[in-house]
Amino acid sequence: MSSDRCIVLRSRPVGAPRASDFDLIERPAPVPHGGSLLVRVLECSLDPAMRRWMDADSYGTPIALGGPLPCTLIGRVVDSRCAGFDRGDFVTGRGTLSDFALLEDDGYTRRIDRLNLPSLTCHLSVLGTSGLTAYNGLLKVGKPRAGETVLVSAASGSVGSLVGQIARIQGCRAVGITGSAAKCSRLLESYGFDSAIDRSGKAADALAHAVRSACPQGVDVYFDNVGGPCLEAALGAINTHARIVLCGMIGEYNGESPPGPRNLWRLVARTATMRGFLNREYLAHSNDELRQLRQWIDEGRLVWSEHIEDGLENFHSAFMRLFDGTHDGKLILRVATEA
Amino acid sequence: MSSDRCIVLRSRPVGAPRASDFDLIERPAPVPHGGSLLVRVLECSLDPAMRRWMDADSYGTPIALGGPLPCTLIGRVVDSRCAGFDRGDFVTGRGTLSDFALLEDDGYTRRIDRLNLPSLTCHLSVLGTSGLTAYNGLLKVGKPRAGETVLVSAASGSVGSLVGQIARIQGCRAVGITGSAAKCSRLLESYGFDSAIDRSGKAADALAHAVRSACPQGVDVYFDNVGGPCLEAALGAINTHARIVLCGMIGEYNGESPPGPRNLWRLVARTATMRGFLNREYLAHSNDELRQLRQWIDEGRLVWSEHIEDGLENFHSAFMRLFDGTHDGKLILRVATEA
Repeated sequence: MSSDRCIVLRSRPVGAPRASDFDLIERPAPVPHGGSLLVRVLECSLDPAMRRWMDADSYGTPIALGGPLPCTLIGRVVDSRCAGFDRGDFVTGRGTLSDFALLEDDGYTRRIDRLNLPSLTCHLSVLGTSGLTAYNGLLKVGKPRAGETVLVSAASGSVGSLVGQIARIQGCRAVGITGSAAKCSRLLESYGFDSAIDRSGKAADALAHAVRSACPQGVDVYFDNVGGPCLEAALGAINTHARIVLCGMIGEYNGESPPGPRNLWRLVARTATMRGFLNREYLAHSNDELRQLRQWIDEGRLVWSEHIEDGLENFHSAFMRLFDGTHDGKLILRVATEA
Repeated sequence: MSSDRCIVLRSRPVGAPRASDFDLIERPAPVPHGGSLLVRVLECSLDPAMRRWMDADSYGTPIALGGPLPCTLIGRVVDSRCAGFDRGDFVTGRGTLSDFALLEDDGYTRRIDRLNLPSLTCHLSVLGTSGLTAYNGLLKVGKPRAGETVLVSAASGSVGSLVGQIARIQGCRAVGITGSAAKCSRLLESYGFDSAIDRSGKAADALAHAVRSACPQGVDVYFDNVGGPCLEAALGAINTHARIVLCGMIGEYNGESPPGPRNLWRLVARTATMRGFLNREYLAHSNDELRQLRQWIDEGRLVWSEHIEDGLENFHSAFMRLFDGTHDGKLILRVATEA
């Protein structure tokens, strides 16, 4: 336990991150202070937002050059200096991509148990950031009402697939935009969307037409994970007083920022609202939200997928799956097994 | 009174409206029915939104080909079929660009008097749509708090100049973007802005830099009348939880829609809100708002400008001033004198 491995940022990526932008270094294991936990890291959540944190001019505190990569993780307590947490507890919280990590008692760290769910990793997916992002972004920002149409991009992703299902639970029509015919099938058959749009190979006008066709009553809530042409297509179909939740713009994270939508004036014409959403503003103390998600799982109303890659040494290739779409559901890097 | 002249839409403008897109026709004067007023039209408000209504795919009901151009106007009652309105009353309401117009008792029509103001036309400017647009857009959508920075584009215009002054009354720092050095001087000297930015000749990056310099504490509320590079520059300077009021995008009304801002992701990074605003959702029954504006005028805290052109036959050249900036303050077309 005196030795630790940790992924650090060697250089700020220009465009798509390269393997050489990161190092796997050895370091002495961190030492917990009062109020913190030392955990053996088991699984780490890989999220699009991490790409943003690698930029110098982003939101939050940029990752320092040479510094560890922060992430949400699941770990097992090795040494507790926190009341309410004991050695051997399974916990989730905000740590680093490393063998050992310090977690603070900051409202994000919480004890978890196996429940009767397939694995602990559900606390990174449906009962973790993905589930809370979908829940908070859709219900607290988008505020859909029964009978309305909810459109979501990156709909087969870990957040999008839950947005569609939660929209259906609210009595809404759920329409998803995704990147292949196979993913469209999954939206309809696994996640119960009412309609699915394959955006592959579609120019902006064709995509806009497809959205209008799939949303004959117009779009009341658009949950955007992508930006770019999807946002423009959604703007072309919004109803009066529509709400657009900007949850992320993964399509724009690795390149020069492309031009924005040409039809922003439709926000005026429809007196619509577009709001940026960062789940971290809602994440602390999420007991009620997690309880609701858990109930929907128990009722068989929420399904989810996870894609697990293995080993800190494979961080770069695993992380890049976020951008090429070669994963299905929540992307997770396993650092150690629970044994 | 049996004959009337009226501006009608002959063809939908492609890009900038041409004189040939309109006709001045003769028609029998309209006949009031129960609940309406026939008025002699005195002055008509010329507004950017009118350009939008000329398009087939816009908001509200597009103007019919061959149909009259709607506008807000001041008139004198010739024949009243409405309780509470008498022949000879001065009124403002929604009518048409014509010698005679029918006004409905729809909540927008109200009796006005000369007050102790320079002229009746103030009921089209500071105590009319301009004043109410600034008041409602800034206070009800932007919701500035004392000490915050309010940025406004088209700041020397009839709405923008009032937005800056109302922001100051709220205890905010007011920063304006306008189109010439002379207009900058007017912002500082006549309207009391804290800072003024001349956007003439500035590329997008230079404008963004100028906005950041003029708003060292960042932008909390951006009141946008223009779209395009001004919006992009404002996004580059917004603070966390900033509110962007999209009141209009006059820079985009006459051309192909230009690409939108390249930095919309900043709405996510700053968890900011962008909301489209149409004053018509707030216009009916505006007594409280008008009373407040009137009080500020009486206290010497609001000043305003009007630019009056004469004659229905000069509608086209007058209207085009909205787009080339060769007017100062509220643009009004006088149809008849009060005699």
